[in-house]
Amino acid sequence: MILNFRHNIGGEKLIIAIAQDKKTNEILMVAYMNKEALKRTIETGMAHYWSTSRKKVWLKGESSGHTQKVDEILVDCDMDAIILKVEQKGGACHTGYYSCFYRRLNPPKRLENIGRKVFNPEEIYGG
Amino acid sequence: MILNFRHNIGGEKLIIAIAQDKKTNEILMVAYMNKEALKRTIETGMAHYWSTSRKKVWLKGESSGHTQKVDEILVDCDMDAIILKVEQKGGACHTGYYSCFYRRLNPPKRLENIGRKVFNPEEIYGG
Repeated sequence: MILNFRHNIGGEKLIIAIAQDKKTNEILMVAYMNKEALKRTIETGMAHYWSTSRKKVWLKGESSGHTQKVDEILVDCDMDAIILKVEQKGGACHTGYYSCFYRRLNPPKRLENIGRKVFNPEEIYGG
Repeated sequence: MILNFRHNIGGEKLIIAIAQDKKTNEILMVAYMNKEALKRTIETGMAHYWSTSRKKVWLKGESSGHTQKVDEILVDCDMDAIILKVEQKGGACHTGYYSCFYRRLNPPKRLENIGRKVFNPEEIYGG
Protein backbone atom coordinates (compact mmCIF):
# COMPACT_ATOMS: atom_id res chain seq x y z
CA MET A 1 0.00 0.00 0.00
CA ILE A 2 1.32 3.39 -0.96
CA LEU A 3 -0.04 5.27 2.06
CA ASN A 4 1.98 6.13 5.15
CA PHE A 5 0.35 4.48 8.18
CA ARG A 6 2.43 6.61 10.52
CA HIS A 7 -0.06 7.34 13.32
CA ASN A 8 0.81 4.83 16.02
CA ILE A 9 -2.06 4.52 18.48
CA GLY A 10 -1.86 1.63 20.93
CA GLY A 11 0.70 -0.13 18.75
CA GLU A 12 -1.45 -0.07 15.59
CA LYS A 13 -0.22 1.76 12.50
CA LEU A 14 -2.92 4.04 11.16
CA ILE A 15 -3.97 6.79 8.78
CA ILE A 16 -6.58 9.44 9.59
CA ALA A 17 -9.83 9.11 7.60
CA ILE A 18 -12.34 11.95 7.30
CA ALA A 19 -15.82 11.16 6.00
CA GLN A 20 -17.36 14.02 4.02
CA ASP A 21 -20.81 14.25 2.44
CA LYS A 22 -20.17 14.01 -1.29
CA LYS A 23 -22.96 16.45 -2.16
CA THR A 24 -22.77 19.19 0.49
CA ASN A 25 -19.12 18.78 1.61
CA GLU A 26 -20.34 18.64 5.22
CA ILE A 27 -17.81 16.78 7.39
CA LEU A 28 -19.52 13.78 8.98
CA MET A 29 -16.89 12.18 11.21
CA VAL A 30 -13.20 11.46 11.60
CA ALA A 31 -11.65 8.11 12.53
CA TYR A 32 -8.61 5.94 11.91
CA MET A 33 -7.94 3.17 9.42
CA ASN A 34 -5.31 0.47 9.44
CA LYS A 35 -4.30 -1.30 6.22
CA GLU A 36 -7.05 -3.89 6.56
CA ALA A 37 -9.78 -1.25 7.03
CA LEU A 38 -8.62 0.58 3.92
CA LYS A 39 -8.45 -2.67 1.95
CA ARG A 40 -12.00 -3.64 2.92
CA THR A 41 -13.24 -0.12 2.17
CA ILE A 42 -11.79 -0.28 -1.34
CA GLU A 43 -12.99 -3.85 -1.94
CA THR A 44 -16.56 -3.32 -0.75
CA GLY A 45 -17.09 0.37 -1.51
CA MET A 46 -18.37 0.81 2.06
CA ALA A 47 -16.44 2.69 4.76
CA HIS A 48 -14.57 0.52 7.30
CA TYR A 49 -12.55 1.99 10.18
CA TRP A 50 -10.18 0.84 12.91
CA SER A 51 -11.62 1.13 16.40
CA THR A 52 -8.83 2.21 18.77
CA SER A 53 -10.95 1.24 21.80
CA ARG A 54 -12.19 -2.17 20.60
CA LYS A 55 -9.00 -2.81 18.60
CA LYS A 56 -10.80 -4.18 15.58
CA VAL A 57 -11.89 -3.22 12.08
CA TRP A 58 -15.56 -2.25 11.91
CA LEU A 59 -17.96 -1.63 9.08
CA LYS A 60 -19.52 1.78 9.65
CA GLY A 61 -23.22 1.07 10.16
CA GLU A 62 -22.78 -2.61 11.04
CA SER A 63 -25.17 -2.29 14.00
CA SER A 64 -27.17 0.82 13.04
CA GLY A 65 -27.52 0.23 9.31
CA HIS A 66 -26.18 3.75 8.78
CA THR A 67 -23.56 2.85 6.24
CA GLN A 68 -21.35 5.12 4.14
CA LYS A 69 -21.08 4.35 0.44
CA VAL A 70 -17.72 5.61 -0.76
CA ASP A 71 -17.72 7.60 -3.98
CA GLU A 72 -14.17 8.94 -3.99
CA ILE A 73 -10.98 8.81 -1.89
CA LEU A 74 -8.68 11.84 -1.68
CA VAL A 75 -5.13 11.63 -0.30
CA ASP A 76 -3.17 14.38 1.45
CA CYS A 77 0.34 15.65 0.72
CA ASP A 78 2.19 13.49 3.22
CA MET A 79 0.08 10.41 2.51
CA ASP A 80 -1.03 9.83 6.09
CA ALA A 81 -4.62 11.09 5.85
CA ILE A 82 -7.52 10.55 3.46
CA ILE A 83 -10.96 11.96 2.76
CA LEU A 84 -13.81 9.60 1.95
CA LYS A 85 -16.46 11.34 -0.13
CA VAL A 86 -19.54 9.39 0.89
CA GLU A 87 -23.24 8.95 0.58
CA GLN A 88 -24.41 8.69 4.19
CA LYS A 89 -27.41 6.50 4.99
CA GLY A 90 -29.36 7.78 8.04
CA GLY A 91 -26.91 9.73 10.18
CA ALA A 92 -23.19 9.40 10.83
CA CYS A 93 -23.33 9.98 14.59
CA HIS A 94 -24.43 7.41 17.18
CA THR A 95 -26.21 10.29 19.01
CA GLY A 96 -28.69 10.63 16.15
CA TYR A 97 -27.17 13.64 14.45
CA TYR A 98 -26.33 13.68 10.76
CA SER A 99 -22.75 14.75 11.56
CA CYS A 100 -20.65 13.97 14.65
CA PHE A 101 -19.65 17.66 14.64
CA TYR A 102 -23.03 18.89 15.87
CA ARG A 103 -21.78 21.42 18.43
CA ARG A 104 -20.08 24.78 18.18
CA LEU A 105 -17.48 25.77 20.78
CA ASN A 106 -18.15 29.23 22.14
CA PRO A 107 -14.89 29.85 24.02
CA PRO A 108 -13.85 29.24 26.58
CA LYS A 109 -16.17 26.36 27.42
CA ARG A 110 -19.71 26.68 26.16
CA LEU A 111 -20.96 24.12 23.66
CA GLU A 112 -23.87 25.19 21.51
CA ASN A 113 -25.91 22.56 19.73
CA ILE A 114 -26.24 23.45 16.04
CA GLY A 115 -26.73 19.94 14.60
CA ARG A 116 -29.46 18.29 12.63
CA LYS A 117 -31.00 15.26 14.35
CA VAL A 118 -32.04 12.61 11.86
CA PHE A 119 -32.84 9.57 14.02
CA ASN A 120 -33.61 8.55 17.58
CA PRO A 121 -30.65 6.54 18.92
CA GLU A 122 -32.86 4.65 21.41
CA GLU A 123 -34.81 3.17 18.52
CA ILE A 124 -31.63 2.08 16.79
CA TYR A 125 -29.35 0.86 19.55
CA GLY A 126 -31.36 0.60 22.76
CA GLY A 127 -34.50 -0.77 24.29
CA MET B 1 -10.27 22.53 28.98
CA ILE B 2 -13.38 20.48 28.26
CA LEU B 3 -11.98 18.54 25.29
CA ASN B 4 -10.60 15.01 25.46
CA PHE B 5 -6.93 15.07 24.38
CA ARG B 6 -6.90 11.31 24.05
CA HIS B 7 -4.70 10.81 20.97
CA ASN B 8 -1.30 9.97 22.40
CA ILE B 9 1.38 10.44 19.73
CA GLY B 10 4.97 10.36 20.93
CA GLY B 11 3.85 10.98 24.51
CA GLU B 12 1.88 14.16 23.71
CA LYS B 13 -1.85 14.29 24.39
CA LEU B 14 -3.70 15.56 21.35
CA ILE B 15 -6.99 16.19 19.58
CA ILE B 16 -7.46 15.96 15.81
CA ALA B 17 -8.08 19.32 14.09
CA ILE B 18 -9.53 19.56 10.58
CA ALA B 19 -9.30 22.90 8.77
CA GLN B 20 -12.23 23.55 6.44
CA ASP B 21 -12.85 26.50 4.11
CA LYS B 22 -15.67 28.42 5.73
CA LYS B 23 -17.25 29.40 2.42
CA THR B 24 -16.96 26.30 0.23
CA ASN B 25 -16.65 23.59 2.92
CA GLU B 26 -13.55 22.26 1.11
CA ILE B 27 -11.29 20.38 3.54
CA LEU B 28 -7.87 22.05 3.59
CA MET B 29 -5.75 19.93 5.93
CA VAL B 30 -5.79 17.80 9.06
CA ALA B 31 -3.34 18.03 11.95
CA TYR B 32 -3.12 17.65 15.72
CA MET B 33 -3.44 20.15 18.54
CA ASN B 34 -2.31 19.91 22.13
CA LYS B 35 -3.87 22.11 24.83
CA GLU B 36 -1.42 24.94 24.18
CA ALA B 37 -2.12 24.99 20.43
CA LEU B 38 -5.86 25.16 21.06
CA LYS B 39 -5.38 27.91 23.66
CA ARG B 40 -3.30 30.02 21.28
CA THR B 41 -5.79 29.41 18.45
CA ILE B 42 -8.65 30.68 20.60
CA GLU B 43 -6.66 33.63 21.97
CA THR B 44 -5.33 34.86 18.63
CA GLY B 45 -8.08 33.72 16.25
CA MET B 46 -5.37 32.16 14.05
CA ALA B 47 -4.88 28.39 13.66
CA HIS B 48 -2.01 26.86 15.66
CA TYR B 49 -1.16 23.16 15.55
CA TRP B 50 1.12 20.66 17.27
CA SER B 51 3.89 19.32 15.08
CA THR B 52 4.45 15.64 15.90
CA SER B 53 7.79 15.66 14.04
CA ARG B 54 9.24 18.91 15.45
CA LYS B 55 7.44 18.46 18.79
CA LYS B 56 6.37 22.07 19.08
CA VAL B 57 3.36 24.30 18.62
CA TRP B 58 3.41 26.18 15.31
CA LEU B 59 1.38 29.01 13.90
CA LYS B 60 0.04 27.88 10.52
CA GLY B 61 1.65 30.23 8.01
CA GLU B 62 4.49 31.32 10.28
CA SER B 63 7.04 30.88 7.48
CA SER B 64 4.80 31.08 4.37
CA GLY B 65 2.42 33.81 5.47
CA HIS B 66 -0.44 31.47 4.55
CA THR B 67 -2.37 31.84 7.76
CA GLN B 68 -5.80 30.53 8.67
CA LYS B 69 -8.21 32.95 10.33
CA VAL B 70 -10.61 30.94 12.46
CA ASP B 71 -14.26 31.82 12.14
CA GLU B 72 -15.85 28.96 14.05
CA ILE B 73 -14.86 25.81 15.96
CA LEU B 74 -17.05 22.68 15.86
CA VAL B 75 -16.62 19.78 18.30
CA ASP B 76 -17.41 16.12 17.68
CA CYS B 77 -19.48 13.71 19.77
CA ASP B 78 -16.64 12.20 21.77
CA MET B 79 -14.83 15.53 22.22
CA ASP B 80 -11.52 14.39 20.73
CA ALA B 81 -11.71 16.11 17.33
CA ILE B 82 -12.60 19.59 16.11
CA ILE B 83 -13.27 21.40 12.86
CA LEU B 84 -11.83 24.85 12.31
CA LYS B 85 -13.92 26.83 9.84
CA VAL B 86 -11.29 29.14 8.39
CA GLU B 87 -10.47 31.86 5.93
CA GLN B 88 -7.32 30.56 4.22
CA LYS B 89 -4.75 33.07 3.01
CA GLY B 90 -2.81 31.79 -0.05
CA GLY B 91 -2.90 28.00 0.08
CA ALA B 92 -3.00 25.48 2.91
CA CYS B 93 -0.48 23.04 1.43
CA HIS B 94 3.30 23.51 1.41
CA THR B 95 3.29 22.05 -2.13
CA GLY B 96 1.44 25.10 -3.44
CA TYR B 97 -2.04 23.60 -3.60
CA TYR B 98 -5.03 25.25 -1.99
CA SER B 99 -5.83 22.00 -0.13
CA CYS B 100 -3.46 19.28 1.08
CA PHE B 101 -5.95 16.76 -0.34
CA TYR B 102 -5.06 17.48 -3.97
CA ARG B 103 -4.95 13.88 -5.20
CA ARG B 104 -7.58 11.25 -5.85
CA LEU B 105 -6.76 7.60 -5.17
CA ASN B 106 -7.70 5.41 -8.10
CA PRO B 107 -7.37 1.94 -6.52
CA PRO B 108 -5.25 0.11 -6.06
CA LYS B 109 -2.35 2.54 -6.31
CA ARG B 110 -2.75 5.30 -8.86
CA LEU B 111 -2.82 8.88 -7.60
CA GLU B 112 -4.49 11.40 -9.87
CA ASN B 113 -3.78 15.07 -9.37
CA ILE B 114 -7.05 17.01 -9.15
CA GLY B 115 -5.89 19.98 -7.06
CA ARG B 116 -5.81 23.70 -7.61
CA LYS B 117 -2.29 25.19 -7.45
CA VAL B 118 -2.34 28.69 -5.98
CA PHE B 119 1.34 29.47 -5.37
CA ASN B 120 4.85 28.38 -6.32
CA PRO B 121 6.47 26.78 -3.25
CA GLU B 122 9.99 27.66 -4.48
CA GLU B 123 9.13 31.33 -4.30
CA ILE B 124 7.82 30.95 -0.78
CA TYR B 125 10.20 28.55 0.91
CA GLY B 126 13.19 27.97 -1.35
CA GLY B 127 15.87 29.70 -3.37
